[in-house]
Amino acid sequence: MTIERVAIIGLGLLGGSVGLAIAEYLPQVATTGYDASPETRQRAAERGLVGTVHDNAADAVADADLVIFCVPVGAIADVAREMAAAIPAKAIISDVGSSKAAVSQALAEALPNNAVVPAHPVAGTERSGPDAGFPALFRQRWCILTPPEGTDPDAIAEVSAFWEALGAKVELMDAAHHDLVLAVTSHIPHLIAYTIVGTASDLEDVTRSEVIKYSAGGFRDFTRIAASDPTMWRDVFLTNREAVLEMLGRFTEDLTALQRAIRREDGQALFDLFTRTRAIRRSIIEQGQDDARPDFGRGDH
Amino acid sequence: MTIERVAIIGLGLLGGSVGLAIAEYLPQVATTGYDASPETRQRAAERGLVGTVHDNAADAVADADLVIFCVPVGAIADVAREMAAAIPAKAIISDVGSSKAAVSQALAEALPNNAVVPAHPVAGTERSGPDAGFPALFRQRWCILTPPEGTDPDAIAEVSAFWEALGAKVELMDAAHHDLVLAVTSHIPHLIAYTIVGTASDLEDVTRSEVIKYSAGGFRDFTRIAASDPTMWRDVFLTNREAVLEMLGRFTEDLTALQRAIRREDGQALFDLFTRTRAIRRSIIEQGQDDARPDFGRGDH
Repeated sequence: MTIERVAIIGLGLLGGSVGLAIAEYLPQVATTGYDASPETRQRAAERGLVGTVHDNAADAVADADLVIFCVPVGAIADVAREMAAAIPAKAIISDVGSSKAAVSQALAEALPNNAVVPAHPVAGTERSGPDAGFPALFRQRWCILTPPEGTDPDAIAEVSAFWEALGAKVELMDAAHHDLVLAVTSHIPHLIAYTIVGTASDLEDVTRSEVIKYSAGGFRDFTRIAASDPTMWRDVFLTNREAVLEMLGRFTEDLTALQRAIRREDGQALFDLFTRTRAIRRSIIEQGQDDARPDFGRGDH
Repeated sequence: MTIERVAIIGLGLLGGSVGLAIAEYLPQVATTGYDASPETRQRAAERGLVGTVHDNAADAVADADLVIFCVPVGAIADVAREMAAAIPAKAIISDVGSSKAAVSQALAEALPNNAVVPAHPVAGTERSGPDAGFPALFRQRWCILTPPEGTDPDAIAEVSAFWEALGAKVELMDAAHHDLVLAVTSHIPHLIAYTIVGTASDLEDVTRSEVIKYSAGGFRDFTRIAASDPTMWRDVFLTNREAVLEMLGRFTEDLTALQRAIRREDGQALFDLFTRTRAIRRSIIEQGQDDARPDFGRGDH
């Protein structure tokens, strides 16, 4: 990897974690950063999320080899356009957005003279903001790169090496296919978690206090996901609209079939599905993609 | 509490945990147990889930002050009827079922001469069987009692004291209201988790291996819940059919409204819901009903 200077635009959970991970795993690489919020810039400087926090974006990117946009995906196009004149032609452009086709296109249009290698590290927590990041966020997680056809292979190799240095496992994927895969493994799970938490908050015959008290029956798991950053997730659904609606249609069909099985008291249909779904959990644990401890290790097991 | 001998019928996650919790927190109380499966009985004896494992149910309950049914809710009526002649009239009857109206009625009909105090400890993990139980399962969790009108207050007090001794916080509730509350805090979350895991397994354009690899985007949380015991959950949906269908109707309405917001690119509607749902998470953590660590403490935070 020849990258010596990384500029991080947006210093929340993801941007902050990238900065801290570079400091830990690539200490020879210099980092600069910028965030539109003065409070976030101040907190980022206090926590040392990057080597130098700049008060304007142009200064942050002036000498960068790699510029990583860590802002909500709906904001990337505008931010990239505003900074286009300040970004050196040598800089590779990347991001950490959860949807990729729309973002890849926006970056390529805004910065036609730069190599663009969009990235999506499949990692995160329900926290957000400059206090949420930590250096190990990407370790043992997948990072999906979706370079458009014709992207300079050296730029792809640089970005791959960069993420691998932070502990991630890198995979290349077509942007449209990425958006379909993540619609089912991430976007729809978030959408239904937000929905059920909203449904539970609005009931008349069950109080909010009852919902909270008895949440250990399963509901509390959904509240963690539904505490994720609202701006980030609004943008994900708007920029990955088609794949989300496609997968949501399939989910709704399957849910309707289960509803029918319950109404008709078809115990066998329920039992068959509930048996089939256990296998995936086993594979996820075998492949190191989740904690094997029962109940996520809650309590004194 | 005057209870000296507890018989546990069904020695899986719940029955086993009750037995181990008694040994830990009520060591003066003698326990007997029975399970229909010879393998489970053998494993229960090896792990010492109860003081004495009996090879038939009648022997297990012969001298009990408290009989707790820890079998799937769909099996409780038959099991109680078969054992009715062997259960002493002095014994208080209880259970640990996740749905209560149907079960309470079945127990009262099967055992008309006994005091019946149905119970639902809102606690569990995705594991099942005689190896899954542990003594701390009920600590700091709510246990809901749903005694029918006219139940002997002394029997209610005994069962309350019993669960409090195991570390639970006890609440009394009408069985029908319990079934509505738990439909939203437990049954619907399980149903939608089972559904999305099923949907993800059946896609043609996204492979199962991709689903597993990129599950850290949110999906993996759902697979934990969808690994729960199939028989138990089949029975919950069949015995709490009306409340589940009612709550499922509300969830589906809300999901349809979100689907419409995505289709119409109504970012404000999405943002408003996603902001509102954060508050419930905070309350659940403040009230000690979940782990405060980001991402359930996964990784090196």
